[in-house]
Amino acid sequence: MEKFDKLIESKSYTNRSEAFRDLIRQELIQKQWQSGQEVAGAIILIYDHHKRELVNKLMDIQHEFGGMIISSQHVHLDHNNCLEIIAVKGSPKEAQKLADSLKSVKGVKHGTLSMSTTGKEIE
Amino acid sequence: MEKFDKLIESKSYTNRSEAFRDLIRQELIQKQWQSGQEVAGAIILIYDHHKRELVNKLMDIQHEFGGMIISSQHVHLDHNNCLEIIAVKGSPKEAQKLADSLKSVKGVKHGTLSMSTTGKEIE
Amino acid sequence: MEKFDKLIESKSYTNRSEAFRDLIRQELIQKQWQSGQEVAGAIILIYDHHKRELVNKLMDIQHEFGGMIISSQHVHLDHNNCLEIIAVKGSPKEAQKLADSLKSVKGVKHGTLSMSTTGKEIE
Amino acid sequence: MEKFDKLIESKSYTNRSEAFRDLIRQELIQKQWQSGQEVAGAIILIYDHHKRELVNKLMDIQHEFGGMIISSQHVHLDHNNCLEIIAVKGSPKEAQKLADSLKSVKGVKHGTLSMSTTGKEIE
Repeated sequence: MEKFDKLIESKSYTNRSEAFRDLIRQELIQKQWQSGQEVAGAIILIYDHHKRELVNKLMDIQHEFGGMIISSQHVHLDHNNCLEIIAVKGSPKEAQKLADSLKSVKGVKHGTLSMSTTGKEIE
Repeated sequence: MEKFDKLIESKSYTNRSEAFRDLIRQELIQKQWQSGQEVAGAIILIYDHHKRELVNKLMDIQHEFGGMIISSQHVHLDHNNCLEIIAVKGSPKEAQKLADSLKSVKGVKHGTLSMSTTGKEIE
Repeated sequence: MEKFDKLIESKSYTNRSEAFRDLIRQELIQKQWQSGQEVAGAIILIYDHHKRELVNKLMDIQHEFGGMIISSQHVHLDHNNCLEIIAVKGSPKEAQKLADSLKSVKGVKHGTLSMSTTGKEIE
Repeated sequence: MEKFDKLIESKSYTNRSEAFRDLIRQELIQKQWQSGQEVAGAIILIYDHHKRELVNKLMDIQHEFGGMIISSQHVHLDHNNCLEIIAVKGSPKEAQKLADSLKSVKGVKHGTLSMSTTGKEIE
C-alpha cells in the first residue's frame, strides 16, 4: 500500500481511488486487445526521411492497411528526423501487424504501438 | 442589398451584421497577407503516392521550409490518392513560395493555399 | 498572353503548359463541387479557446457531421489562438453546410473552406 | 535464446539481429527519458466530448504547456467518443507532467504517454 501511495504521488493522482480507476481501465483495455474486439490506438515512428526507399515503403504499407488507418500526423523534427503518428481503429491483430511491419522497415529509428480503446465499453 | 441578403441566406448566416463581420475580416486577412506580417494557413495537396519521386520531392521541399511548417495531416483517400494538409505559420511570401513549390511537383493533382491568420490582431 | 506569362513567373511555374494544366484542373474541381459528386477538402478555423461555449459548440457541430469528417489537426498558435484544420470527404453540399455552421459560431475569428478533390477522376 | 526466437517470430522480425537492434534502441530511448535530454513522443487520450468541462480543461492544460506541444490530431470515433493524439517535444519531465495532468482530468477514459525520441543520437 505504501508503494501504491508513492506511485500515486509520482503520477500526480490526487487520491487513491483515481489511481485504482486508472489501473482497472488499463486492465480493461488490455482485455479488449486480447479478445480481438475493435480497438483504437496510435503507431509512433521516428525515421530519417533522407532514406528514400524507406519513405515509399512506409507509405505502401499504410495504403495496404488502408482500412484501419484513420489519418496520420507528420512532424519535421529537424532537417533529418521525422515523427509520424498514425491513428488506427480496427482489429487488434491487424493493428499489431501494421505496427510490426512499419517498425521493421530498414531505417526506422524507433517505433511503438500505443494501445488504447474506442471508448465504447468504458465509463 | 438584395444580393447581399441572398448571400446571407445561402451561407447560413443568421443576420446581416454577421455577414458584414465576415466580409470585414476577410479584408483584414488579405491585408495581413499583403503587408508581410506573420500569418497562418494551410496547404492542401492531392496526389497519387505511387509516383515515388513525387513523395520524396514533397518531403524534401517540406524539410527545406521546415521552419514555417508546424505539422501535416495525411489521409489515405483510397488505394492511390492521398490528401495532405500542411499547417504553416510565418511570412506570407514564404508560405506562397512553399505552396507554389509543392503544387508544381510533377504528379500533384491539386494544390491550394488557404490563407488565414494567427488571430493576433483580430477580435 | 503577356499577362499569363507574368502569372506563370509569379507562381514559380516553370512553363506555360504547367500553368495551363493548373487552370484546367481548377476548373475540373469546381465542376465536381457543383455537380454534387464526392469531394474532399479542408475547413480552416481560427478561434480563441478561452471562449468556452465556442469550443463545445465547435465540437458538437463536428460530431453531428461526424460521417464526413476524417480527422482534424489542432495547433496552439499562442496562449489564446487556435488553428484547427478539419479534413472532410463527402457531399459538396454537406461540406459547405458544415463549413458555414462552424464559421458562424460566435467567437470564430476566421473560417475558410478549401475545396479539393478525392483525386479519382483527375490524372 | 529459444524464448527470444519466439519473440522474433511473434513480432514479424525477419531475423535475430533486427530484434536485437530493436531491444538496444528501446534501451537507448529509456535512457534519454531518464537523463532529461530533449525527447519526442505522443500522448493519446480517449474521452467523451459531451462532458463540457472536460473539453475546456484539456484545452487549458494544453495551452499552459504550449511550448512543448507541436500539434494534435483529433478523431471523432463515434457520436460520443474522441481520440486525441498530442505530439510533444521537450523535456521528459515536462512531457510526463503534461501527460499526467491530462490523464487525471475527470472524464478521460484512457490516457497513455508513448515515449519516443527526437532521433538525434540514434543511427
